[in-house]
Amino acid sequence: MSQVAIYPGSFDPPTRGHEDLIRRSLHFVDRLIVGVAASSPKSSWFSVDERIELLTTIVADEDRVAVERFDGLLADFARTTGANLVVRGLRAVSDFEYEFQMALMNRKLHSGLETVFLVPALHLTFLSSSLVREVASLRGDVSDLVHPAVQKALEQKLR
Amino acid sequence: MSQVAIYPGSFDPPTRGHEDLIRRSLHFVDRLIVGVAASSPKSSWFSVDERIELLTTIVADEDRVAVERFDGLLADFARTTGANLVVRGLRAVSDFEYEFQMALMNRKLHSGLETVFLVPALHLTFLSSSLVREVASLRGDVSDLVHPAVQKALEQKLR
Amino acid sequence: MSQVAIYPGSFDPPTRGHEDLIRRSLHFVDRLIVGVAASSPKSSWFSVDERIELLTTIVADEDRVAVERFDGLLADFARTTGANLVVRGLRAVSDFEYEFQMALMNRKLHSGLETVFLVPALHLTFLSSSLVREVASLRGDVSDLVHPAVQKALEQKLR
Amino acid sequence: MSQVAIYPGSFDPPTRGHEDLIRRSLHFVDRLIVGVAASSPKSSWFSVDERIELLTTIVADEDRVAVERFDGLLADFARTTGANLVVRGLRAVSDFEYEFQMALMNRKLHSGLETVFLVPALHLTFLSSSLVREVASLRGDVSDLVHPAVQKALEQKLR
Amino acid sequence: MSQVAIYPGSFDPPTRGHEDLIRRSLHFVDRLIVGVAASSPKSSWFSVDERIELLTTIVADEDRVAVERFDGLLADFARTTGANLVVRGLRAVSDFEYEFQMALMNRKLHSGLETVFLVPALHLTFLSSSLVREVASLRGDVSDLVHPAVQKALEQKLR
Amino acid sequence: MSQVAIYPGSFDPPTRGHEDLIRRSLHFVDRLIVGVAASSPKSSWFSVDERIELLTTIVADEDRVAVERFDGLLADFARTTGANLVVRGLRAVSDFEYEFQMALMNRKLHSGLETVFLVPALHLTFLSSSLVREVASLRGDVSDLVHPAVQKALEQKLR
Repeated sequence: MSQVAIYPGSFDPPTRGHEDLIRRSLHFVDRLIVGVAASSPKSSWFSVDERIELLTTIVADEDRVAVERFDGLLADFARTTGANLVVRGLRAVSDFEYEFQMALMNRKLHSGLETVFLVPALHLTFLSSSLVREVASLRGDVSDLVHPAVQKALEQKLR
Repeated sequence: MSQVAIYPGSFDPPTRGHEDLIRRSLHFVDRLIVGVAASSPKSSWFSVDERIELLTTIVADEDRVAVERFDGLLADFARTTGANLVVRGLRAVSDFEYEFQMALMNRKLHSGLETVFLVPALHLTFLSSSLVREVASLRGDVSDLVHPAVQKALEQKLR
Repeated sequence: MSQVAIYPGSFDPPTRGHEDLIRRSLHFVDRLIVGVAASSPKSSWFSVDERIELLTTIVADEDRVAVERFDGLLADFARTTGANLVVRGLRAVSDFEYEFQMALMNRKLHSGLETVFLVPALHLTFLSSSLVREVASLRGDVSDLVHPAVQKALEQKLR
Repeated sequence: MSQVAIYPGSFDPPTRGHEDLIRRSLHFVDRLIVGVAASSPKSSWFSVDERIELLTTIVADEDRVAVERFDGLLADFARTTGANLVVRGLRAVSDFEYEFQMALMNRKLHSGLETVFLVPALHLTFLSSSLVREVASLRGDVSDLVHPAVQKALEQKLR
Repeated sequence: MSQVAIYPGSFDPPTRGHEDLIRRSLHFVDRLIVGVAASSPKSSWFSVDERIELLTTIVADEDRVAVERFDGLLADFARTTGANLVVRGLRAVSDFEYEFQMALMNRKLHSGLETVFLVPALHLTFLSSSLVREVASLRGDVSDLVHPAVQKALEQKLR
Repeated sequence: MSQVAIYPGSFDPPTRGHEDLIRRSLHFVDRLIVGVAASSPKSSWFSVDERIELLTTIVADEDRVAVERFDGLLADFARTTGANLVVRGLRAVSDFEYEFQMALMNRKLHSGLETVFLVPALHLTFLSSSLVREVASLRGDVSDLVHPAVQKALEQKLR
């Protein structure tokens, strides 16, 4: 079967955990669309365009991955792109409950849309964009947590 | 990509929840092996052969599904069958933690083996084999919880 | 015994889940006061008056239900209204911990005030006001999630 | 409304936590049936008759409480006794998930049967029958954890 | 061994739960530095100086406790002060996951820095600074929840 | 302060996770007693003597560690040995709730006994004795999970 999957998120900024999940997804999907949510209610550090640019740099070596912006419902984005699978990472119990609700909601809004959850590499399970922002804003070393392009972007943002 | 996935479990007995997960998995895998764990430490109601027979009846209409027994580690069963994906359902937080540990352990024992988690149909999220056994042993109606073949087998077992 | 119970909340907006809980409560309480918290720290979509109007429309057919605003502590509102029971819904583990703390706090502030928790209808367990706001603001279909009066109010708000 | 509620459990043995929940329930139900499950799959320390006798002693001062044995499904016991409410205590997240599943199952088996959850007194939230058995079998002091009648019964059992 | 431990937090305001944890820590550490995080992203009710003053009043009788402000990473503050231990309280599952992530992150940033978790006194497990702020802003009685100095400061703040 | 801490457990068998916790504890306690619970209700693979021997081998290089058997309550063992601290590892939410209850119970039985929780090394967070037994009984490779002495003992046990 030819699979197109969406990996949706805020990616503010993308972390090594996001990158790990993208590469894991490619083990079982044919094509992956990294969907950058433009309509997130939370105020963001990086603009949608900056986040798309960072993600594009990070996955430049994977020709089966596309990075795209989406503005409305994930279910509608899936219909437009022809994706039948949503990929999400699970790190913690608190993740799980929110993700569970979203998976059920998305299935309700688009009955053919299945969500699959992956476990990130163990050493990345404690990592999140908000942790990266916190460490960076306190001038901590984030070189193990993000791609060099993201590290550079964080440094510019904080200058 | 050609995918072979394993859906491992005890299936003692198979429920409508297991059936739901099998059919959902076929949306994104090419071939699914339902792996009946023979070496479970818990004492079972149904023999491995009975469970295989019940599952085979339940998925008789799906020619991309095979039901097989496995005796040792899931990682070894995956190597033997050439599967690169494990499929599991997530219903509750307590599921999540155990499944998370097993996914990490299996990845450690077989680095190419990825586990993906699915959310069952909402009306089946509260269902489990142990709940079916409990209701059946108290002479409750299980017709909504299991396939007719399983219901019949439970009635014979309890006579 | 003659029971007066309070069902407190933000109801921003009321959902089908809130409505379900109100009707379930009427199975075992004589009179239910739906208490709309005016002093919520979170900024709201709908004014307290709008929320009271929507709730009043939704439960117009139930003459044992009153919808009232309250400004201070729930414990004080209970004293004023003579209620001895608080009703709350439980959907998820994260709900549970917060609700548990609030129930203990309210018992501390008003020792005769007991909190009872109900489980919503299964198909409504994934529903919340914030999910409704999210879906509505992304122009998704909320007709299954809220009463027609709420749907209309959301449409006007988003125009 | 005239309420009859069931408080079902194993009560092996009854603890101060069970007693607390019985008395709290009487704040909002007219009549409470403490239902001792005879068909529990777990092997018990005390026989059903012993547990009924202990509970009867503990609530001797409450004439609105009856202690009864039940053998089959809780839903059937509710039908027989005319109860429309099930009362259960919630202490921890792990409780919550199991109780949630059982509440949904019981509603499925008997649509008029509502489950309400109560929070025990704070100083009893860490208490359970299995903890009492563990402390007693290690010859620890259980006088704060159980009624004197239960303490005496435990001492006789362990002699 | 001579131990210096840090108990970091926002303390906005300090509660009886914080005080309990400070005194418990002194059972096994030689010297405790209460570290008031100045760089918290959340807007605070009390200034860092006010919080330091309140904490200093609360622990005036303990000569092994120092109250200090810190601006950057906890790991850097530990290096500067020579502390090798971080002390934190655990009240709930949601605490646990966040604290777990922070402990792993801090160990990553400073490999000699161990985090130990304590359980507060049972009657304080439901207490938090945000609950105190909520009760105080609704004009509830907080005299059991905070030190008299904090109660007075809250009253002045709310006048 | 001179600290004596107990690290209690079943250790059936000891894992690399237990070893990690022992060494972490030595960063902040003067002397550690590894307490092997002889009265565990669960049937064990290894006898208490075998488990003590294995642990003694594992920590042979640490002269501040003693391995001892205890038969009754942990609180009584602490009194006998003069320990004022209990050390436990936390890996998951399910751990947390049980450990929380035990810490409160032990404080009730011995008011001077404080429990502190540590986080194991990240790569050991998914490890438990039961997982080791499961992998070993399925003839999986446990060399990364346990000390060589334990691996040898497992092989002999399973021959």
